[in-house]
Amino acid sequence: MFSYRRAVRFEDIDAAQIVFFPRYLVYCHEALEQFFASLEGGYASLIMKRRLGLPAVHIDMEFMKPLHYGEEVAVQLDVTKIGKSSVGLRYTVIRIGDGAELARINHVCVLSNLDVLKSVPIPDDIRTLLEHHLLHEPDRI
Amino acid sequence: MFSYRRAVRFEDIDAAQIVFFPRYLVYCHEALEQFFASLEGGYASLIMKRRLGLPAVHIDMEFMKPLHYGEEVAVQLDVTKIGKSSVGLRYTVIRIGDGAELARINHVCVLSNLDVLKSVPIPDDIRTLLEHHLLHEPDRI
Amino acid sequence: MFSYRRAVRFEDIDAAQIVFFPRYLVYCHEALEQFFASLEGGYASLIMKRRLGLPAVHIDMEFMKPLHYGEEVAVQLDVTKIGKSSVGLRYTVIRIGDGAELARINHVCVLSNLDVLKSVPIPDDIRTLLEHHLLHEPDRI
Amino acid sequence: MFSYRRAVRFEDIDAAQIVFFPRYLVYCHEALEQFFASLEGGYASLIMKRRLGLPAVHIDMEFMKPLHYGEEVAVQLDVTKIGKSSVGLRYTVIRIGDGAELARINHVCVLSNLDVLKSVPIPDDIRTLLEHHLLHEPDRI
Repeated sequence: MFSYRRAVRFEDIDAAQIVFFPRYLVYCHEALEQFFASLEGGYASLIMKRRLGLPAVHIDMEFMKPLHYGEEVAVQLDVTKIGKSSVGLRYTVIRIGDGAELARINHVCVLSNLDVLKSVPIPDDIRTLLEHHLLHEPDRI
Repeated sequence: MFSYRRAVRFEDIDAAQIVFFPRYLVYCHEALEQFFASLEGGYASLIMKRRLGLPAVHIDMEFMKPLHYGEEVAVQLDVTKIGKSSVGLRYTVIRIGDGAELARINHVCVLSNLDVLKSVPIPDDIRTLLEHHLLHEPDRI
Repeated sequence: MFSYRRAVRFEDIDAAQIVFFPRYLVYCHEALEQFFASLEGGYASLIMKRRLGLPAVHIDMEFMKPLHYGEEVAVQLDVTKIGKSSVGLRYTVIRIGDGAELARINHVCVLSNLDVLKSVPIPDDIRTLLEHHLLHEPDRI
Repeated sequence: MFSYRRAVRFEDIDAAQIVFFPRYLVYCHEALEQFFASLEGGYASLIMKRRLGLPAVHIDMEFMKPLHYGEEVAVQLDVTKIGKSSVGLRYTVIRIGDGAELARINHVCVLSNLDVLKSVPIPDDIRTLLEHHLLHEPDRI
């Protein structure tokens, strides 16, 4: 499991005074950017130099409790599946303070060449990083 | 079906040069704001004066094709379910020009009092509006 | 004068329950995108195909009154200066309803080749459009 | 001087492949939130509990060099003026790596009661914090 810590910021709050729900995906993506930081040049180099990206094909989100300004979360990232090109990710958003689980997000994306937006096989360095965080659930054994 | 037209804007584009996927939820929410425009005072009055909102409890998103700067979409909104407090919504994002279906989003939310963030029964005026757009799928008959 | 109409949206509101001040620049940029819509392919084509953009070099913003959710504004755009590469723009944000002037923004930008981020002389079609909206203030005569 | 470190993120990039200029104000505001972290409860408590905020009245921004994805900045914050209710702030955005100065932003805001949006005298704990970071320029002596 990879964990990314994030404070709720002023701009995340909407007119209902809670975090605007699309912002959860922004938090998840930030966790993903951070997850790739150990690759040479990080996520930025992946996108800008290698022209590889991870367009989403499927997302599902479950919201358990609302998130307020002044709170801080840990976004926990697990890899749930590694295919030829596709990757399954799971994010669990935990409120720091009381440890409450606020949201759970599953995210399937496909490693793609960004110039042509076509899937490509996952390169070795990325596969190694993903495998390092692959979730081995008891019920899979 | 309710339809909301939206041009992709400069700020929607990410470093991969396509619409950043959390922005789809922003488009959907804009469609929802517009959907409520026929209520007195619109969505703003619902939130600010009546202190009623629709926090999300579940979302799933399927992405079929990427969306680029310079393109325009229609976000089609259907109501799929009306419960005591909960509402099921479906958004279909269609590219204007070639009519391609780009994304499909299901969104379950719960009508809530925003001061206490607790569910409340759907008031009559909102129920009437929702019913007017309720999807009657053949397989439901 | 060119005018762009815009409703305040849910996501524009911050934790202080007014429009987050960076959003005013987003409104101005939307007005600018719309201003260029009469060029062939619009602003998107300018950016993506011709690789011309208008990076900002100077901005000043004056805020007179706050803007709330549920309100609507007209962003009025005037061209104040046309140089070899540089362009001066002025945006006046007016609240529709009471006509109150909420903010005034001056924006100096430089027409640039986006591949090398270097200034280029303003092409004729853009110059013509800008001249059409050039402000002739009495005190300049 | 107070300094806040920030990586450019995916969503900050626009269709011209540089940081979208309104995002600089978001970076500045993040620095300001961080600046207030030493107050009890931080900026969030200021806004949500004490109902005090700092609506902007004037901003000017000068942009020297563009900022790209993969780069990181330090936003340096200085207090330039402390009035009865008004505060002058200066942000200098420095690229970490080569130390280049990318942008300079002056920001005048007014401490206000957010319920009525009226200016209030700066309370002692905030004044002490501001004074601690007040810029004493040689030419003022």
